Amino acid sequence: MARELTVSIDAMGGDSGPGIVVAALARSILRHPSARFILHGDEAALGPLLAKRTKLADRVTVRHTPEQVRMDDKPSLVLRRGRNTSMWRAIESVKNKEAEVAISAGNTGALMAMAMFQLGVLEGISRPAIAALWPTKRGQSVVLDVGANISCDAEQLVDFAVMGEAFARAILGLERPSVGLLNVGSEEVKGHDAVKEAAQILRTASLPIEFAGFVEGGDISDGTVDVVVTDGFTGNIALKTGEGTARLVIGYLRSALRGSLLGRIGGLIASGSLRALRRKLDPSSSNGGIFLGLNGIIVKSHGGTDAMGFAGALDMAIDMAEAGVITRIIADHAELQPHTPEAAAS
Amino acid sequence: MARELTVSIDAMGGDSGPGIVVAALARSILRHPSARFILHGDEAALGPLLAKRTKLADRVTVRHTPEQVRMDDKPSLVLRRGRNTSMWRAIESVKNKEAEVAISAGNTGALMAMAMFQLGVLEGISRPAIAALWPTKRGQSVVLDVGANISCDAEQLVDFAVMGEAFARAILGLERPSVGLLNVGSEEVKGHDAVKEAAQILRTASLPIEFAGFVEGGDISDGTVDVVVTDGFTGNIALKTGEGTARLVIGYLRSALRGSLLGRIGGLIASGSLRALRRKLDPSSSNGGIFLGLNGIIVKSHGGTDAMGFAGALDMAIDMAEAGVITRIIADHAELQPHTPEAAAS
Repeated sequence: MARELTVSIDAMGGDSGPGIVVAALARSILRHPSARFILHGDEAALGPLLAKRTKLADRVTVRHTPEQVRMDDKPSLVLRRGRNTSMWRAIESVKNKEAEVAISAGNTGALMAMAMFQLGVLEGISRPAIAALWPTKRGQSVVLDVGANISCDAEQLVDFAVMGEAFARAILGLERPSVGLLNVGSEEVKGHDAVKEAAQILRTASLPIEFAGFVEGGDISDGTVDVVVTDGFTGNIALKTGEGTARLVIGYLRSALRGSLLGRIGGLIASGSLRALRRKLDPSSSNGGIFLGLNGIIVKSHGGTDAMGFAGALDMAIDMAEAGVITRIIADHAELQPHTPEAAAS
Repeated sequence: MARELTVSIDAMGGDSGPGIVVAALARSILRHPSARFILHGDEAALGPLLAKRTKLADRVTVRHTPEQVRMDDKPSLVLRRGRNTSMWRAIESVKNKEAEVAISAGNTGALMAMAMFQLGVLEGISRPAIAALWPTKRGQSVVLDVGANISCDAEQLVDFAVMGEAFARAILGLERPSVGLLNVGSEEVKGHDAVKEAAQILRTASLPIEFAGFVEGGDISDGTVDVVVTDGFTGNIALKTGEGTARLVIGYLRSALRGSLLGRIGGLIASGSLRALRRKLDPSSSNGGIFLGLNGIIVKSHGGTDAMGFAGALDMAIDMAEAGVITRIIADHAELQPHTPEAAAS
């Protein structure tokens, strides 16, 4: 892109506050030498942090906001009273076209509510979804929805397939990503009505989507398909179950190695390899959910992340803005419409 | 128990046939010196396998069956035409009170349909569920339903809580197991109607259940509660996602260690510890789903398991029979009824 890309940041979101945001910026700025950043947050907290990082000075603008959204604030409340928060203002910069993308590590429900209110949902998309990148045997896959929509009908699942496919092309650089619907078996007769209907629409629509049919839970980590589509209830539970299992295995590994002298020696010798393993599985390296289906790009970083994790989410935000994901979703969705009126109406 | 416990086995189920079943029996018989076994299957295949294991001779009875259920047979078909299969006959031995428990590594849907038809569902329980034991940071937890019921209402989830709690007391030896409902957040307002209503019933019922409220996907492996209750769609996907993630991490571990000379040396030295890790995470060691809510005990072993895995499922079957799980479920469920007619009716 010719013009300088600008990222709008909620500097007050997340559990650890503006310290990790500024540290993440210092990392990210090395990788993105032409990007600019608008930091929304408490000037008194941000000033001293930025003063130590002289290289950030001409690339970062601070916008003071007197308030911030708390992790337990209800979305309905912050919609009414949250206009002076760093989160609201971070989204507003995207709405005003000052920035291409906004990022926050704050309250997910509040962020989604504010983003929907300010940016609006893309025409033809019924509800936005949150997508996550998942490490697999083959690399990375996109999983959505991981928490925005508790229950979904067939049409929504089809929308998620279109959005996820466009996202995978943009972010994973795949020409023709394969798309699977998460189910309890791969046979056509399995599952509830919504997944069965969605599969039927995806099979019959003349969309240029490589639809691979149903996939099971184990296929996510196996990387059987590039995009895994599911409702937000199942997707959220799958994501957190996967993260929990990874933590469990790494914990077992540590205690298995500590449990014997030979294990400790072996672990010490292999420590470089084990560090590489931990990095690959660290949630902070594939950190961040992406809100798809809005008139603007919003990236949600993990609330409990560190500077490396927030920097990873920043990288993803910049990649998304550069790849023009929204334009692709609009084009793909427009292509879907004429072919499936009867199926989508069921 | 004074009298000899008898286990009825579908010797033809699973991907690898009667060979692993007989090998598993040879293992299990050492641990259960007074148990007896009825093997239902093809005499021509079983005869030579048993001839090599002289120690099994006086403990195992073979019942010839001319047919077997295939992995892709539809439940509705085998219900009509499957009376001569090893699976049908294995369940029939429990119905006839020749055996306390039946076990099969075959087609799950067919096994559940035949078990419901022959044994019937416990009075007051709306639908049976499949429970799985899940390795956690603290030991093991019970997760149900992992696949029998695609969608569940609040009353069914409450039934699962009662059954899972009784199962955890019997198998995990806990006096007062804690029970959580799987959801996308721990706040009361989260989730769909069925989980919210189920939580309300479990909170207000004067059941002696330690109800811990909502838990999230990550809580399963953390072992936050002893019993995790969910619908069969979500539970199946969570289980398979967890298994897939464990496979992924172990695969990463192998290639991380192989990737460098120091890693290989360290891996060799630590190989005992790593073997212990693999054993702990091997699906074959915690292998087997348990059908709860029937007038009889049915254990489903993993279709692709080996002899060690099938032996693990056999151990669990014997433990369940000895612990009198069904009697406990009936007693607990009876206690639930009088207190929640108005809540359960909603």
